[in-house]
Amino acid sequence: MIKTIEWKNNAIKIIDQTKLPLKLKYLYIKDLRTLWHAIRRMQIRGAPALGVAAALGVYLGIRDLRTKNFSDFCKELDSVTRYISTARPTARNLFWALERICSIAVTNRYKPIKTIKKLIFREAQKIIDEDKIVCRKIGVFGEKLIKNGSSILTICNTGALATVDYGTALGAIYRAKERGKKIKIYVCETRPLLQGSRLTAWELKKNGIDTILITDNMAATLMQEGKIDLVIAGADRIAANGDSANKIGTYNLAVLATYHKIPFYIAAPTSTFDFNLRSGRDIPIEQRNPKEVTHLFFKQSIAPAGTKVYNPAFDVTPHKLITAIITEKGIITPPYERNIRFRLRGKGL
Amino acid sequence: MIKTIEWKNNAIKIIDQTKLPLKLKYLYIKDLRTLWHAIRRMQIRGAPALGVAAALGVYLGIRDLRTKNFSDFCKELDSVTRYISTARPTARNLFWALERICSIAVTNRYKPIKTIKKLIFREAQKIIDEDKIVCRKIGVFGEKLIKNGSSILTICNTGALATVDYGTALGAIYRAKERGKKIKIYVCETRPLLQGSRLTAWELKKNGIDTILITDNMAATLMQEGKIDLVIAGADRIAANGDSANKIGTYNLAVLATYHKIPFYIAAPTSTFDFNLRSGRDIPIEQRNPKEVTHLFFKQSIAPAGTKVYNPAFDVTPHKLITAIITEKGIITPPYERNIRFRLRGKGL
Repeated sequence: MIKTIEWKNNAIKIIDQTKLPLKLKYLYIKDLRTLWHAIRRMQIRGAPALGVAAALGVYLGIRDLRTKNFSDFCKELDSVTRYISTARPTARNLFWALERICSIAVTNRYKPIKTIKKLIFREAQKIIDEDKIVCRKIGVFGEKLIKNGSSILTICNTGALATVDYGTALGAIYRAKERGKKIKIYVCETRPLLQGSRLTAWELKKNGIDTILITDNMAATLMQEGKIDLVIAGADRIAANGDSANKIGTYNLAVLATYHKIPFYIAAPTSTFDFNLRSGRDIPIEQRNPKEVTHLFFKQSIAPAGTKVYNPAFDVTPHKLITAIITEKGIITPPYERNIRFRLRGKGL
Repeated sequence: MIKTIEWKNNAIKIIDQTKLPLKLKYLYIKDLRTLWHAIRRMQIRGAPALGVAAALGVYLGIRDLRTKNFSDFCKELDSVTRYISTARPTARNLFWALERICSIAVTNRYKPIKTIKKLIFREAQKIIDEDKIVCRKIGVFGEKLIKNGSSILTICNTGALATVDYGTALGAIYRAKERGKKIKIYVCETRPLLQGSRLTAWELKKNGIDTILITDNMAATLMQEGKIDLVIAGADRIAANGDSANKIGTYNLAVLATYHKIPFYIAAPTSTFDFNLRSGRDIPIEQRNPKEVTHLFFKQSIAPAGTKVYNPAFDVTPHKLITAIITEKGIITPPYERNIRFRLRGKGL
């Protein structure tokens, strides 16, 4: 598997995902501002990968600080995390990673700043290592839901390119393939930024998986023709009641799957859950540049000049349309509010 | 209004719709082969406009025939109409126009070939003139379904560019605007060929209508947010039971509208109805070039080389999801089989 994000040569090494599938180009990011723009421009994207980018980003932002005073250090750390958190608002994992890094600093506040810096770097590395394990566990659980001979519909990219190296929804698909199951994957191209055609088709093909690309508006007719056995999507933020924000178009697929009586699964690590939000209504939805819709790759115009655009990057699928949520801690089924609390937070009923 | 297709300078004059919205370029088509390719390449498209193109195309194909013998003329006419009918399979109007032109020849078989040629040309002109009246009537009936202040979702292009000069579904919208109603139109970009962003956004803007462009996968979230009051789409072929084939993505919108309890209308002339087909299952669906999905405008690659694609140009919306069908003979509501027979064919119950 390719490595989407890692620490190498004193820098964050990422695949520039805006260049795929035409070029596999790596970037070495050495400063915070470049990282912020890489997240904003989606050179790195995918909720779990954004968690890793945020964690490593904090280290980039604090590693050269000269202060030896914890209070000053803390102010700087706060300013760095605030800055990173403005890059993109929806993916929970980004905020989860920032909180985790900050709590390392607080827990070790009596240690020398140099040590705290090391511990922060170590925590970021831990997030990377954990992501690999978490994705494989999601794969193991998710695979159980895939029967031999299945045709699966997916959207956006939830594979190696959205995580450190394996994937969430695509993790289940990779695992099914590893277990010798014969599967066929229909990939929604995922306008406007085409993560389906550019990224998912690219990595599935690389991994020898039978892949068929469709435009987003073809999913309904595939289901009508009986060509889809199940839908698996990822998530960017999941509320305490199971409502799930994911790439725009996911809610569309959930409605279609419900109408055609096809199982609809969400696959995501527990770091995607936001237990502070009671329902999906509270999830902040990023509105992006209209040029993503009116131009291809911000260059070629495909709409009349001055066309008004509505461009939400995500939508929210209500929990009642979700058959199950696949996490590294197991498969969660309805009733979600109760089962999320019980399974993920270890809280009694 | 712009003229999408007309007879001028001894040629078929059309707008080259593959060049919009960047260029408003006219083509003068003087031979049958060029016409065939113009239809196939969708330089001219839209079911009613294809009817006109087919009718004028027959005239192009037979005007220079030297024979004075009806039997020889008829063989050539048959070969011309067969050739045109292979350009695209789904739009009923194309076949309807060919049949209409052929029956003119048969009815006048005892007249001189020169006269028959003139009558064929006159019939093609009649189809043009009728299309203008039919669209305005569809507009008058359709407008009644649009309340002041409505937000309307539409797909593909069903306006002036899909007809001679006014439109079917967009005809209803133009009429609502003419009657002073305040309306807002959300336009699905309509992948893969982007008729929504390239053509509909262009002509709505030109006519001063408040237009917002979305990618196809955003329709669901708009409905969830309560932003859509009704959906109007066109049709390429309607079966005797009301099942309607239209641009890929239409069935998706019909399922979404049903789920969100939003009215879903089809607007089409009676020439779109195929009374020989009992249901939508019998409608031939055109599969098009995979490059439409993997490349933008057949040039810029947006998917890995060699990606497999499923690319049906149309889907079929079952009649049970259609709130009403707007025709030039009035608004048809369920039960469709009975009401189509009664209203459009004048057959008793």
